[in-house]
Amino acid sequence: MSDKRFSAERLLRFTNAIFVDAGIPDEDASVAAGVLLASDLRGIESHGIARLFHYTEMLHCGRVNPRPDIHIAHETPSTATVEGDNGLGLVVGPRACEIAMDKAELAGSGWIAVRGSNHFGIAGYYVMRALARDMIGWAMTNASPWVAPLWGAERRLGTNPIAIAFPGLKEPPVVIDMATSVVAYGKIEIARRNGESIPPDWAVDELGQPTTDPNEVPGGGALAPLGTDRERGGHKGYCLAAMVDLLTGVLPGANWGPFVPSFWPRNGEPEQRGGQGIGHFFGAMRIDGFGPADEFKSRVDEWIKCMRETKPAAGTDGPLIPGDCERESERERSANGIPLSAAVVATLDELSRKTGVPF
Amino acid sequence: MSDKRFSAERLLRFTNAIFVDAGIPDEDASVAAGVLLASDLRGIESHGIARLFHYTEMLHCGRVNPRPDIHIAHETPSTATVEGDNGLGLVVGPRACEIAMDKAELAGSGWIAVRGSNHFGIAGYYVMRALARDMIGWAMTNASPWVAPLWGAERRLGTNPIAIAFPGLKEPPVVIDMATSVVAYGKIEIARRNGESIPPDWAVDELGQPTTDPNEVPGGGALAPLGTDRERGGHKGYCLAAMVDLLTGVLPGANWGPFVPSFWPRNGEPEQRGGQGIGHFFGAMRIDGFGPADEFKSRVDEWIKCMRETKPAAGTDGPLIPGDCERESERERSANGIPLSAAVVATLDELSRKTGVPF
Repeated sequence: MSDKRFSAERLLRFTNAIFVDAGIPDEDASVAAGVLLASDLRGIESHGIARLFHYTEMLHCGRVNPRPDIHIAHETPSTATVEGDNGLGLVVGPRACEIAMDKAELAGSGWIAVRGSNHFGIAGYYVMRALARDMIGWAMTNASPWVAPLWGAERRLGTNPIAIAFPGLKEPPVVIDMATSVVAYGKIEIARRNGESIPPDWAVDELGQPTTDPNEVPGGGALAPLGTDRERGGHKGYCLAAMVDLLTGVLPGANWGPFVPSFWPRNGEPEQRGGQGIGHFFGAMRIDGFGPADEFKSRVDEWIKCMRETKPAAGTDGPLIPGDCERESERERSANGIPLSAAVVATLDELSRKTGVPF
Repeated sequence: MSDKRFSAERLLRFTNAIFVDAGIPDEDASVAAGVLLASDLRGIESHGIARLFHYTEMLHCGRVNPRPDIHIAHETPSTATVEGDNGLGLVVGPRACEIAMDKAELAGSGWIAVRGSNHFGIAGYYVMRALARDMIGWAMTNASPWVAPLWGAERRLGTNPIAIAFPGLKEPPVVIDMATSVVAYGKIEIARRNGESIPPDWAVDELGQPTTDPNEVPGGGALAPLGTDRERGGHKGYCLAAMVDLLTGVLPGANWGPFVPSFWPRNGEPEQRGGQGIGHFFGAMRIDGFGPADEFKSRVDEWIKCMRETKPAAGTDGPLIPGDCERESERERSANGIPLSAAVVATLDELSRKTGVPF
């Protein structure tokens, strides 16, 4: 890893200032920068400051509303649809997640479907916010179509992640945050850049057949759903992606399936529309809505220890607990700084030149 | 298929009478029989009347309480933990599911974690009950350990299914009901009976290494999580099984992970206990808690049509909608009767002899 490292504080300050320069109110800019940096700290570079340039581009070209009127469009004590008014997903997401937790405070749980939003960063960020309030947090989002349904030969669904977190008492929390495709598109890009082939389980070509050529994916193919084919449970990955699309897109009236707009403004837009913007779904459940919180958390500790004590498979160190890798990354990067590739640093330098914000 | 066919009505009547004979109150027996037969009608024979003999055995040997005091142990307006008092899962499940829907009626959504229950049949049964009340239904359950966590070499988690259903307006509903392992244990049993090998993606041996010998699974190996290995997303299947175990087992204080009791009384019991009985988790969300119900259902129709219109992969008829196969089975079996193997018929004959209930 020869990438240069930058302190989280420096990147946070810069990101914040860039968002303010793009017209985002101070408080929202600070939240949005926090979401992006959480991703870099947790080692998910693909969703972090590497995207700042594109977020800014969307703000500058007017595709995203810097001062959205985020509001509840419809509600009950424990549910609501939130209208994001085409704001930055990094602003709409945290607001909607807060509403879910506030409802949970009063009604025991809160469930928020969001329309008119944009890409919200990592789903894991949202579910971890619930931990401090002794809640179990849920988050899902749909995304632009890269995945074929099982037995399909075209892109119809996003990598549609599911996240959920459970607090431990003395143990760190269990934090699940997973795409519902076999792999994220990023892995295809890495193989393309390196001129390598991919395993035949990751993607299909434009006929819907397994391919080992990563160029087939942007060339008219698609990512495979988790499980890959029928024999190995590809219908289950498709079901999960469908569930997320129905909860995040169809339920609130956001775009869904093939109509979810691309993250990259230069890719153009789908011609047809299924609704407003991108959709999310957040949940929060008060742990003491089910029983004494400390008793639950102490049982989570037992569960974690039990899984760690599982007999290791040959050639491995044994099972991890969901969230272990990201937590280790956060610890290491908080201490030593966040490594950024030369290409990402170049986009930050360009942003600095364009805006006059010192990097 | 040379199996003899029996009308659903006949099997329902018999099942009902057998449960009553085993000491279950009339109303509960009727509900329980309905859950079992729903499984046979939907083509999931493994969870249907084929299990009646064993359910009865558990009642007769006193391992299951025929007249449980099912009650709310802890609650908020939208959440509760339900104590199943060691009742039949086919009785406790429907009761808890009803409580979830009743809470949703008042608070917008209802979320019920259940302890002290037993195997509840197919998860799909529960989520379909919500459709008639214009709700989105969720159901999960843990189950006795057959699955290894990724990088583990022993059984620590059940096949822990996730189910959710969304109503259409003119289209039939989307009904998702999926185990979080690559395959159910039933597929291993079929291969064993036929002396066939299994694909290397389904299971691991006692060293945690892929195996094609189905005898390795009961012999000390385990089923693989959905995704199988790290390269193909096996950590995601493990995450899903963990999520279900934490929500169904750890949250309400049921047994979890390796401590979930076996369905088969003759298998004995885990020595250590993690809590009470088996655990479930039910959710119900009023659709009009998010917006006008008919608008949502008409968007579901559009979503279904769009997925059906996906370009088919070579050699296939194109993607199905989750629930298609089970609905077709239900239509066909309602018309022509439910096929039962000679072995299952023999268990029903034996039950009839033992109890005097005419089959």
